[in-house]
Amino acid sequence: MASDIVLLAAVSVLSACQQAYFANLVGKSRLKHKVMPPAVTGHPEFDRTFRAQQNCIEFYAVFLVDLWAAGCFFNQELASLFGLVYIYGRHLYFYGYIQSVKGRLKGFSVSKLALILLLVMSLLGITNSILDKYIHLNLLTKIRHIVLG
Amino acid sequence: MASDIVLLAAVSVLSACQQAYFANLVGKSRLKHKVMPPAVTGHPEFDRTFRAQQNCIEFYAVFLVDLWAAGCFFNQELASLFGLVYIYGRHLYFYGYIQSVKGRLKGFSVSKLALILLLVMSLLGITNSILDKYIHLNLLTKIRHIVLG
Amino acid sequence: MASDIVLLAAVSVLSACQQAYFANLVGKSRLKHKVMPPAVTGHPEFDRTFRAQQNCIEFYAVFLVDLWAAGCFFNQELASLFGLVYIYGRHLYFYGYIQSVKGRLKGFSVSKLALILLLVMSLLGITNSILDKYIHLNLLTKIRHIVLG
Repeated sequence: MASDIVLLAAVSVLSACQQAYFANLVGKSRLKHKVMPPAVTGHPEFDRTFRAQQNCIEFYAVFLVDLWAAGCFFNQELASLFGLVYIYGRHLYFYGYIQSVKGRLKGFSVSKLALILLLVMSLLGITNSILDKYIHLNLLTKIRHIVLG
Repeated sequence: MASDIVLLAAVSVLSACQQAYFANLVGKSRLKHKVMPPAVTGHPEFDRTFRAQQNCIEFYAVFLVDLWAAGCFFNQELASLFGLVYIYGRHLYFYGYIQSVKGRLKGFSVSKLALILLLVMSLLGITNSILDKYIHLNLLTKIRHIVLG
Repeated sequence: MASDIVLLAAVSVLSACQQAYFANLVGKSRLKHKVMPPAVTGHPEFDRTFRAQQNCIEFYAVFLVDLWAAGCFFNQELASLFGLVYIYGRHLYFYGYIQSVKGRLKGFSVSKLALILLLVMSLLGITNSILDKYIHLNLLTKIRHIVLG
């Protein structure tokens, strides 16, 4: 079974490293702008950096759920690819937000698109699996047979 | 294996959609009350909406852990059902909190009850599984045999 | 399969209880210092308690990802042990932070160390599993054979 989820695990660990990296950058921004904990405001650039990290956290569990549902019930390789796109989008978002409030928009769109694609894959895969379980109708396998002849 | 977890995955994806929906409503509340990012306060209704979303995020990973532990080690169908109750509780909580600070209490109680039930199922199922693994004693199977004759 | 993940599930549920317990202590600190929701500041001790909980939440999904990746792809027992160390570190962190801002540092170091060890195990295990999947080279099994003769 391990090989069926190893790419999902790899993307998850990569995204976890990204989250830890963002937390680290917030810590550095604290020192730079002298915003000592437990304060979470104090300088415009720090405020944006902190808010960027918080937004990434807000969506992180949502991302993981969609990634794994898409990967387990639709296609692991495709889900992992969109997972990488999401991570890239969050990278753009974070650094863009540090620069300016408007700077966050491009990265947010990229990560939102990746999330929507993962969600669509999740819904298709789960619906198929439920139909298969309860009325023994596996549409994805049928489609694959038709497409591949 | 997929059929053993498909309901848990379905409930998880539904709850992920709910989280994304709440984030979206916070964005709309920002526009309505002109609270521009990175600010997270500025108008009483926005403050409540934002805090409601934050509280849902705080408990989201806890919910997912309890849901999956209860579903994998006790009973998938029952865990999924309580998962739906949790989501319903969070719905009441979020909209109640937008109305007033007191308005959050009913929904919070519903989601707390669902969480406690999932936790109890998790603890029973995991304890049983550990006893089974290390001293080959499967109590749940024995009880099932007695109940079902 | 259940027995291969039961310890990971047990540690996850324990950590979920810890998260819920911290949330409960924030609620009690609200009453003690009369900081009514949706406010999240108002008294130095409450501010530290709230920030301690928030930091635990920020790292919680990261911890779960590393715990499960380390446990599924490297070694369940070792991953669970470091998971317990992480939980202990967070306990020290939370109570230390309530006392003083400096008081958080020791617990943070303990939980950070546990997280790094889980990450290293994840990376080794996942790399091994990817090599095994795509070029049929299982280094961990080979090392085990050499070590155990």
